[in-house]
Amino acid sequence: MKQRKIVITGYGTVAKEFVELLYRKKEAFIEQYHTEYTVIGVVGSIGMIYDPEGLDLSILHGLPTGSIGISQYASMKDLVLESPSMKGDILVECTPTNLETGEPALSYIKQALEANMDIVSVSKGALVHSLPELLAIAKAKGRYIKYSGATAAALPTLDIGEFSLAGSTIQSIKGILNGTSNFILTSMSEGNLTFEKALQLAQENGIAEKNPDLDIKGLDSACKILLLANGLFHTNLTLEDIVVDGIEKVTKADMQRAKINGCEWKLIASAKKQRDRLVLQVKPEIIPPENPLIHVKGTNKGILFETEEMGTICCVGGASHPKGAAAAAMKDIINLIR
Amino acid sequence: MKQRKIVITGYGTVAKEFVELLYRKKEAFIEQYHTEYTVIGVVGSIGMIYDPEGLDLSILHGLPTGSIGISQYASMKDLVLESPSMKGDILVECTPTNLETGEPALSYIKQALEANMDIVSVSKGALVHSLPELLAIAKAKGRYIKYSGATAAALPTLDIGEFSLAGSTIQSIKGILNGTSNFILTSMSEGNLTFEKALQLAQENGIAEKNPDLDIKGLDSACKILLLANGLFHTNLTLEDIVVDGIEKVTKADMQRAKINGCEWKLIASAKKQRDRLVLQVKPEIIPPENPLIHVKGTNKGILFETEEMGTICCVGGASHPKGAAAAAMKDIINLIR
Repeated sequence: MKQRKIVITGYGTVAKEFVELLYRKKEAFIEQYHTEYTVIGVVGSIGMIYDPEGLDLSILHGLPTGSIGISQYASMKDLVLESPSMKGDILVECTPTNLETGEPALSYIKQALEANMDIVSVSKGALVHSLPELLAIAKAKGRYIKYSGATAAALPTLDIGEFSLAGSTIQSIKGILNGTSNFILTSMSEGNLTFEKALQLAQENGIAEKNPDLDIKGLDSACKILLLANGLFHTNLTLEDIVVDGIEKVTKADMQRAKINGCEWKLIASAKKQRDRLVLQVKPEIIPPENPLIHVKGTNKGILFETEEMGTICCVGGASHPKGAAAAAMKDIINLIR
Repeated sequence: MKQRKIVITGYGTVAKEFVELLYRKKEAFIEQYHTEYTVIGVVGSIGMIYDPEGLDLSILHGLPTGSIGISQYASMKDLVLESPSMKGDILVECTPTNLETGEPALSYIKQALEANMDIVSVSKGALVHSLPELLAIAKAKGRYIKYSGATAAALPTLDIGEFSLAGSTIQSIKGILNGTSNFILTSMSEGNLTFEKALQLAQENGIAEKNPDLDIKGLDSACKILLLANGLFHTNLTLEDIVVDGIEKVTKADMQRAKINGCEWKLIASAKKQRDRLVLQVKPEIIPPENPLIHVKGTNKGILFETEEMGTICCVGGASHPKGAAAAAMKDIINLIR
């Protein structure tokens, strides 16, 4: 049986769901993948709980997120909080996304690669900031960086490009990669609402944040298509290379005009080969009825690959949920050893 | 750089498309996967052309399928037709599907496993007949059997189960796995045709065969769900375990009644956990508008996974085409070395 020791940085809802998943399925994974996964450290802003034999998930999974859970675990187990250090086999990076500097994730990932660990990243900041650099370091070290949780979580995106389309030429990718903006557009369409009313509805339902700019102005979608493109096409693009347009100017009248022809407005993040260049774009587009992305409703997501050899492949699902993001991280961990 | 030597058994349209693909992309695969793929043998009913240094694909790709192409290649290259023998690293099995005995595929696969080769099967017969036995032999030998081309070709089905849902619990699979019967149902729905008229249309378009029983009576779908289930749930089921019902009794009136409620009839192949059992079934079902499988039209296919951790994931695409099946085999070959 193989042993894999995991360190988690950042202990928010996704990290806690990950602990829950591992606690619940540890025995199943041993049986199915002949591998014992152990969490040896969790790093929060107040410090790191660390046990080389593995933290006791039967206790940890019942404690709250963040510093409270970490300090409760430390006192229950008589552990001294340590300063963060990277040891073990796999880093699961879950700190809050910081697009400006990529920190603290960027430092954690570099330290972990330095310590010969593989990386599974749920947070986007460090990757958006420096994916090509990090991939180069990983390659030199013979390590892997996986980040399904940072692209569209439970919706398979990178997997399809890497595994299911291996050997085929991808001509373009079009995705509905942000659940919040799709919820707003769906509400506008189905409820005949203005943008402002639909945004308010999303906020009331805890789907949109108080400051919804990251989602509605397209930046979150831009980050995701950037990571997909750099990962699948081995490009070295940055956010500055993407023309980004949000959904805030789509009007009730636009929406109704589209519907007359059976079409729908969707916020589409796309990557398309044009001659020798890869063009990335995020903008609201009118989707015709024959495009399967038209059926992506509410907080669901979808991705459509156009390929030379396999035609069009479209995948839909993976509504936004911390449990789905945690399962996406677990999937990446399992696929590391394959 | 790695070297992988391939033997192809059966030289029909899919095998020829496979040779075409490899001829066209050989250099690209060397660059992308650091692996040189060479076809060292092709086996047809008249014998085997074999060259340990690799057959010349620039010649082979221009010749016809079947015995004619094989004998033309032999005479152009001054080769003596040999009796089939399994040598090299990978067998790509493309002989016509024989559900009764699984032959000749079954013998070829067993001989190849005996010779320490991995198997990529496009034909279904041997797998439907003996997948659990073959998997056990492969396991004992440390070899792999992949068969994307035998389940739904370009549509990712096994990949999603194996890679994209790794670590998640699959509760059920529902698939539209047969393009011909879906074309017939789509024509009935959109053209308000009787089953007989729609079948005739499919035959006129070269989509349905003269004897369409395998497709319309559900047996082809049954074979595919059997292979998916035995592969993903590690079960040991046979065709006898599946209740199979075809589309031939769906009437014009049934179709119109469904459409009034926004529903559509689809031939659904399903695998569902019920207590400790896995229940397999193929039957025409009324699909409600909120199920993404309703949007699978014409010869397209689709598959929907319900999972505990990742919610519902649905993949649509992969219209039936020999090029797609060949690309699916190539994908399996590439994923073998990962």
